[in-house]
Amino acid sequence: MELETYLKKTADEVNSLLQDWYGDPKSPLSQAANHLLFAGGKRLRPALFKLAADSVTPGSSHRIMPAGLSLEVTHNFTLIHDDIMDKDEYRRGQKTVHTLWGEPVAILAGDVLYARAFSLICHAEAPGDAKVRAVSLLARTCEEICEGQQQDMSFEERNDVTRDEYLAMVTRKTGVLYGAAAAIGSLLAGGSDEQVDALYNYGCKIGAAFQIQDDLIDLLASPEKSGKDQASDIREGKQTLIAITARKKGIDLQPWRRSLTRDDIASLIALLRDKGVIDSVRRDAEEMIGSAISGLHVLTDTPEKKLLADLAWYFIKRDY
Amino acid sequence: MELETYLKKTADEVNSLLQDWYGDPKSPLSQAANHLLFAGGKRLRPALFKLAADSVTPGSSHRIMPAGLSLEVTHNFTLIHDDIMDKDEYRRGQKTVHTLWGEPVAILAGDVLYARAFSLICHAEAPGDAKVRAVSLLARTCEEICEGQQQDMSFEERNDVTRDEYLAMVTRKTGVLYGAAAAIGSLLAGGSDEQVDALYNYGCKIGAAFQIQDDLIDLLASPEKSGKDQASDIREGKQTLIAITARKKGIDLQPWRRSLTRDDIASLIALLRDKGVIDSVRRDAEEMIGSAISGLHVLTDTPEKKLLADLAWYFIKRDY
Repeated sequence: MELETYLKKTADEVNSLLQDWYGDPKSPLSQAANHLLFAGGKRLRPALFKLAADSVTPGSSHRIMPAGLSLEVTHNFTLIHDDIMDKDEYRRGQKTVHTLWGEPVAILAGDVLYARAFSLICHAEAPGDAKVRAVSLLARTCEEICEGQQQDMSFEERNDVTRDEYLAMVTRKTGVLYGAAAAIGSLLAGGSDEQVDALYNYGCKIGAAFQIQDDLIDLLASPEKSGKDQASDIREGKQTLIAITARKKGIDLQPWRRSLTRDDIASLIALLRDKGVIDSVRRDAEEMIGSAISGLHVLTDTPEKKLLADLAWYFIKRDY
Repeated sequence: MELETYLKKTADEVNSLLQDWYGDPKSPLSQAANHLLFAGGKRLRPALFKLAADSVTPGSSHRIMPAGLSLEVTHNFTLIHDDIMDKDEYRRGQKTVHTLWGEPVAILAGDVLYARAFSLICHAEAPGDAKVRAVSLLARTCEEICEGQQQDMSFEERNDVTRDEYLAMVTRKTGVLYGAAAAIGSLLAGGSDEQVDALYNYGCKIGAAFQIQDDLIDLLASPEKSGKDQASDIREGKQTLIAITARKKGIDLQPWRRSLTRDDIASLIALLRDKGVIDSVRRDAEEMIGSAISGLHVLTDTPEKKLLADLAWYFIKRDY
C-alpha cells in the first residue's frame, strides 16, 4: 500500500474510534476536552503506533488500538496546554480551547485528556506487565515533553543556544512522543527488547527531524501554502536550527527581528541559501532520517517496515 | 497505636521517601514541580492508602509504597493547577508555584507531577494486572477531580445550587481521591473486590465529609486559629452546604456578601446557630462518617480497621 493511502485509512479509523469513545460528551468540560481532538489533525502518532505493532507481529495492531489513540490524546493534551502558554488564538483552523472557554477550563480540558491517555492504554488487549511498561514509558515521555516545552520557552530569552541544546530540546518536545508511539505499539504487540528499542530511537529521530522541517517550512513556505505567517520564527528571534546554523556561519539574525515585508523575507532567504545555511539544515534533517531508518535493520522485511521507511522520509519531504 | 502517632509516623515516612525519589531535582522545571510537594502537608492520602493495604493484608503496605506516594503527588498536581485557576497567592504558608515561576511553568510543573503519579504506581511491587487496575482507577479519578473543580467554578455564577449538586461536586473534587487511595492500597495488597469497593466508598464519603468540615471551619474558626480569613466563603457567596441549608431554612445570605467585621461574623454565626443551620450541616457530616465506617464491616478486625474508624472521625473533628 502507498503511504498516503495508509495514512488516510488510519486517520479515518482513528477519527471513527475517537467518536466511539468520546463522541457523546456528558459534561461541559468534556465538550471542551473534545474540541481540539475532533478538529482533525494528521493522526501520525497512531499511524506510527500501528506500523510498529504490525511490523513486529503482523495483524496485531487492531487488538491494542486503544493504546494507539492514547498517543493522539496525549498529543492533544500537550497542544491545549501549550496554546495557553504561547497565547495562541488558532490551531487547526479553529479557535483554541482557552480562547473559547477561558484559561481555567482549558487547563482542566488538557488535564482530562491527560487522564484519558493513561486510561486508554489500560484498555489494550495485552498482558498486564506489557501494559505497565507502556504506562511507565508514557509517563516518562510526558515528563520529557514538559521539560522540552520549558526549555523551548527558556530559549526565548537567549541568543547563544547551541546545536546540541537545540537537538536535545526538539527531541524532548517532539521526538519522544513519536518514540513512545513506536515503542508502545511494538511492546504491546510482543516485540523483543531489541525491536522496541530500535523503534523508540527511530521515532525520536524522525520526530526531531519533523520539527526541523517545521522550522524550514516556517521560513520557506508562503502564507498561501502553509496557512501561517511566513518567517514568524525569525521575527520572534526563535532559536531554531536555522538561526543557530546562521550564527555559526557569521550571519546575525538579530536585525531581522522586526516586521518583515515579502521582499525582506525573499532577501533573507537568498542570503541564507547563499551562505549554505538552508542546505546545511536540510542535510542535518536528512541524516537524522537516514540514521532512523538504518536502525530498523533488526526488523524482518514486511510491508510495514517499508512503510516505516516511507514515513520517515515523508516527515521531511512535506512542504506545509 | 494512637491515630495521631500513626499519622505523624506516616508523614515522616512519606517525606523521607519523597526525598529519595525527587530530592535531587535535575532541572529548573523539576524544582518548580517539587516546591509544593516539599512544603509539608498532612500526607493523609498515603496514610489512608497504608491503612487500607494493611487492613486487607497485614504488613503489605511497605512493598507497594510508591503507589501510596502517587496519591500524594496527584493531590499536589491538582493543587498547583487549582491555585492558577483560583489566582491564590499562598498555600501551606508558602508562595504558590505560579506566583514564583509564572503561569506557564506552573502549568508544566503540575503536568510533571501528573506524569510522576502514574509512573509511581508502576513501581509498586504487585502483579501487573493489579497495577493496570490501579492505573485505570487513578485515571478515572483524575478525570472526576477535574469535573468536580469545573463544577465548583460553575457554581460561583449561581445561587440555586441544590444539596445533591453540592454533594456530587465535593465527592468528585475531594472524595474520589481518598476513595482511590483506599481502593488502590487494598487492590495492590490483594484485597477482594468486595473489600476494595467498601474501602473506595469509605474514602469517598470521608473525603466529602472532610470538605464539609472545611466549610464549617471557614465560618467558625478565628483567623488566629485557622491562619485564614474567617467567613471568606460567605463573603464570596460560595455555594457551600451551609449556604444551601440556610437558603432552605429561609435565610438569605446575599446581604452578607460584603466586607464583614468580627461583630458581623458573630451575629451571622448566632443567626445560623439559632435557625439550626450549623447543627444540620454537622449532622450531615456525621452521618456520612457513620455510613463510611459501617461499610467497613467486610474487613476483619485488625488494628488498621480500628485506625480507619478513628481516621474517619478525625476528618470532621479537626477544628482547623
